[in-house]
Amino acid sequence: MLDDALTAALLAGKVAALARAVSIVENGRSGYEELLATLHPRLGRARRIGLTGPPGAGKSTLTERLVTAYRVQGLRVAVVAVDPTSPFTGGALLGDRIRMESVALDPGVYIRSMATRGSLGGLATATREVCDVLDAAGFERIIVETVGVGQSELDVTRMADTTALILVPESGDGIQTLKSGIIEAADLFVVNKADRPGADKLRRELEMSLDLRSGRMSRPVPAHHGALRSGPPKRPAVDVADPTVWRPPVLVTTASKGDGIEAVIDALEAHWLWLVASGALEQRRRTRLAERTREVVERAMRRWVWQEAHADEMITARLDDVSVGRTSPYELAADIVAALKEGARV
Amino acid sequence: MLDDALTAALLAGKVAALARAVSIVENGRSGYEELLATLHPRLGRARRIGLTGPPGAGKSTLTERLVTAYRVQGLRVAVVAVDPTSPFTGGALLGDRIRMESVALDPGVYIRSMATRGSLGGLATATREVCDVLDAAGFERIIVETVGVGQSELDVTRMADTTALILVPESGDGIQTLKSGIIEAADLFVVNKADRPGADKLRRELEMSLDLRSGRMSRPVPAHHGALRSGPPKRPAVDVADPTVWRPPVLVTTASKGDGIEAVIDALEAHWLWLVASGALEQRRRTRLAERTREVVERAMRRWVWQEAHADEMITARLDDVSVGRTSPYELAADIVAALKEGARV
Repeated sequence: MLDDALTAALLAGKVAALARAVSIVENGRSGYEELLATLHPRLGRARRIGLTGPPGAGKSTLTERLVTAYRVQGLRVAVVAVDPTSPFTGGALLGDRIRMESVALDPGVYIRSMATRGSLGGLATATREVCDVLDAAGFERIIVETVGVGQSELDVTRMADTTALILVPESGDGIQTLKSGIIEAADLFVVNKADRPGADKLRRELEMSLDLRSGRMSRPVPAHHGALRSGPPKRPAVDVADPTVWRPPVLVTTASKGDGIEAVIDALEAHWLWLVASGALEQRRRTRLAERTREVVERAMRRWVWQEAHADEMITARLDDVSVGRTSPYELAADIVAALKEGARV
Repeated sequence: MLDDALTAALLAGKVAALARAVSIVENGRSGYEELLATLHPRLGRARRIGLTGPPGAGKSTLTERLVTAYRVQGLRVAVVAVDPTSPFTGGALLGDRIRMESVALDPGVYIRSMATRGSLGGLATATREVCDVLDAAGFERIIVETVGVGQSELDVTRMADTTALILVPESGDGIQTLKSGIIEAADLFVVNKADRPGADKLRRELEMSLDLRSGRMSRPVPAHHGALRSGPPKRPAVDVADPTVWRPPVLVTTASKGDGIEAVIDALEAHWLWLVASGALEQRRRTRLAERTREVVERAMRRWVWQEAHADEMITARLDDVSVGRTSPYELAADIVAALKEGARV
């Protein structure tokens, strides 16, 4: 009943209901799965845009510019800032959040930082679920911004319709190390802080690397050393020979000055149109739903094992044997799993 | 049979057997749990030392110095370098590895880098299991070095007998942000790169913070601005009033010059003696074995769900319903878990 009232208020765009629903889902509080199940048929209108990249690439500044551009278009925008890093870097990232204040007071903008969730669900799952709440609440663009450490930059590709990798000119030194995973997963590359030397060189390197990977020769590109490229992507993003193929464009921006932002907005729009026209959107969203279901199954299994079947008590009862080496954690675990299967039989 | 031969060769100190066993365990290859179960009764002789801290704190250099010091004592030392970070920083950390070359050719030293493991087991679990192999193979000191991002610095405390947090003078600016989790978990603090300004200030701040936390007034400490403290810890590490309490010492080193290393070795020894005398060692190891068993149970449950019961097929069969919103991932997951429990009944 409470859920029905909350859902109705959320769908009606009530701010207090949104804050409450996000909080329930973020913290995995009682009833959050029921709430998400109720919202599920309402999902799919929002475009989910993931921004990732190394610390210091200017993701927050770029996000702020994108938010402003979407607001000019009259769209409601949510920003979910995911911080998977430790207390070691917590301070610096908090600084980024504060800098987004130019848009923070706009009632058409919602900003949420996420750091951790309890043991039964990971941060990536919680982020996806918070995005569902925002989607149901009618936000037309959801920008998920995450610093690229650990698994997080690959996680973001699994929750976004479009993933943009944000780099800086200095990233060129490490471009060889970038190649595993994230290059393949990004739909869009942005070389930000292009007022520093090397932006155009990195753009060309990225384009060449992307063309090589797709088996195409790179067209000769005139060098504009240090010149700012803020126009539309120089290569056609959709392959003329095969429109089902998306060729990730490489854009150059100086987000702090607002340079190149329109081209990013255009490329995001082009990618969306391609997603819809090629059938890739439906395919990606199906894949994501299957992954989500897998996560929920695993969470339910953990709940069964530890909260309902109290497998911890079985561990405690035999821990002496494990301690002195009479049995091993592996044998004990096998016995527990066998007992769980037995127990289900009763 | 193969396992028996491998185990025998491993226990006999054969280098090829060690490499093979580590590889089997690191990659979770067929038979690795049986191998670990066989080794389990042989574990416990090694002291496991965890080093964590922010990127750039000089952990690898400190590790190299500690390895050298232990080698002088005639001890066999293994180093497990855990890199939970993304391709973004892969290059820099690889550089650290290469720098450890002064000890890499010593046959009494074993160095292994770990980055990822497949979906059925996480990096932290794999690291603990590789440490088991090294323990069984007779290494007397196992140093687990991990950069403090994400969960990794808390993970290391769960696999080490002694955890040292390595900081640099500049870390003082973020000391407030350090307080959640890792400060409480560290047994030992090292302010490295003490030839930079601020080392002594950070040491005093840390001591004060630790004393406040334990409810003790900090004794006035004379300021030695910029002076290098390479002697033994200035505060008694074991509380005179209550010898079951360990007071984490704060040491100051310049690992690149070898300054302060002996004091770290002494503090590690003191902590080990305290662990044994206070009963904390047995307690920590019991807790770790219980945690390990929990991880193995979860892994076995995942194997059951996805590999034996083929729950993926149930997801695929109903994905259309989820896609169009007729059902939600939560309802589908609940049905799958119910079916699994049913299926166990057959």
